[in-house]
Amino acid sequence: MKAVRTIAELREHIQELKSSSDKKTVGLVPTMGYLHQGHASLIRAAKEKSDIVVVSIFVNPIQFGPGEDFETYPRDEQRDLAAAEGAGADLVFLPSVPVMYPKPTKTKIAVSDVTSGLCGASRPGHFDGVTTVVSKLFNIVQPDYAFFGMKDAQQVAVIQQMVFDLNINVQIIPCPIIREEDGLALSSRNVYLSQEERSQALVLSRSLRETKDALEQGRIRTAGQARDLLVSTISESKVAVIDYVEVVSFPELTSLENEARIMEQDESVLMALAVKFGKTRLIDNCLIQLKGE
Amino acid sequence: MKAVRTIAELREHIQELKSSSDKKTVGLVPTMGYLHQGHASLIRAAKEKSDIVVVSIFVNPIQFGPGEDFETYPRDEQRDLAAAEGAGADLVFLPSVPVMYPKPTKTKIAVSDVTSGLCGASRPGHFDGVTTVVSKLFNIVQPDYAFFGMKDAQQVAVIQQMVFDLNINVQIIPCPIIREEDGLALSSRNVYLSQEERSQALVLSRSLRETKDALEQGRIRTAGQARDLLVSTISESKVAVIDYVEVVSFPELTSLENEARIMEQDESVLMALAVKFGKTRLIDNCLIQLKGE
Repeated sequence: MKAVRTIAELREHIQELKSSSDKKTVGLVPTMGYLHQGHASLIRAAKEKSDIVVVSIFVNPIQFGPGEDFETYPRDEQRDLAAAEGAGADLVFLPSVPVMYPKPTKTKIAVSDVTSGLCGASRPGHFDGVTTVVSKLFNIVQPDYAFFGMKDAQQVAVIQQMVFDLNINVQIIPCPIIREEDGLALSSRNVYLSQEERSQALVLSRSLRETKDALEQGRIRTAGQARDLLVSTISESKVAVIDYVEVVSFPELTSLENEARIMEQDESVLMALAVKFGKTRLIDNCLIQLKGE
Repeated sequence: MKAVRTIAELREHIQELKSSSDKKTVGLVPTMGYLHQGHASLIRAAKEKSDIVVVSIFVNPIQFGPGEDFETYPRDEQRDLAAAEGAGADLVFLPSVPVMYPKPTKTKIAVSDVTSGLCGASRPGHFDGVTTVVSKLFNIVQPDYAFFGMKDAQQVAVIQQMVFDLNINVQIIPCPIIREEDGLALSSRNVYLSQEERSQALVLSRSLRETKDALEQGRIRTAGQARDLLVSTISESKVAVIDYVEVVSFPELTSLENEARIMEQDESVLMALAVKFGKTRLIDNCLIQLKGE
């Protein structure tokens, strides 16, 4: 595995790895580093599907709002390199901010509609920063496949929309959420949690699991009932402060009417949460696939 | 030469033309059709620099504002195909609106700063439409080079900014303005002009030429004097209605202070005009290259 820091080096190494055959496929796993088993599962999925696996590690300043955690976002380059290699990466791209933004970007890619709710509502400008940097990475790496975790389900929907609208020649592969044994969804931000907060945060996965069970067993049926059950379960934690609890179509992310029967929808339904524990905002979600996708 | 109407066909034919060697380069000439000698010069430049020349012909609805001439923009497919073939095109891509926009696009690419003045000020949203469709064409064709006429100098600056900011792997080749013998810059919109308007419109190229001469001969020196001379010359036409007369840096497109001495600038200076003759808005410009670019 090679670690490279400039665009020229990266392109050169990709060409080199491709040199035996231009038919070799490239899989890209874009990350902000501080890799955990969720990232490792993306890298393994990339390894399985592509000949050459590129992992990018870049904490992208333009997707953080004022007062968010850009400066304090956890970083550990040495551990990340070992983790990427262990999971099967061929190349790790670790650009500095000046490599990605030699001048402040005047160009932004903005996706409407799918960015208006959920995290888009709580984090204005966030998804413009995501689509802009992901588009840059796509142009730099020119991958055949790109792998994103469903933990950030809205991010997957936004990027798929961008790829569709701009005719980007890359296939987006969404990969399942990876959880700790006790249910906590893996996130680089979990390190911010105190022991007490971490234990309280289990209410997120539990609320999703219990609501899904209730829907599948027919104890509840509507989006309104699902929202109520999610909110009441989360509220059992005294320190949880709800940012949003939403039940939306996927990938359109249109809010379901309170009366809408979840298991009778024509398309997948996403139950999505953002909840603060102390200063740490966590997200989690559960996708109910209704068309056997 | 082949004419194709779908993205799949286009990609297939490009692959076919490349098949003998993946080292073959692709040159793209994006147009809105109704081809004239200006377009032909772009196609010839593309032919000289690239192995495979793709001409796209698409009147892009999202770059027209309400009340602009999207519906009436001149179209003549048969003549265009002959002109493209005559100039050396290998492939002509003529997508319909549903091919380019199977659903209304939710994704827009916006470039700030360089779009705020000149035509960007008169035509809000115009350049978002241009950058979005050009980015789509780049993703569809994946050219090594793309050729744009300097008649739309701001468009060249905006696209170069987008390519730089998004790390798009294409080299933009600006090509000189082509004029009629009497000086009128070629434009598909010239067909809108009555005989009288066409004759009045010669004031555009004349004002630029005379101002450039005056600067080179030292009869005038400053941006303010250049603006005054341009305005007074254009005003000799009784029917000319000025939209803008600007003297700006290129490619930054920052307005020069009135006192700034044009021939002593560190970078190129663009004198740019937009003037209406009857219902027809014409643009023209003159680039004063000061660094021997």
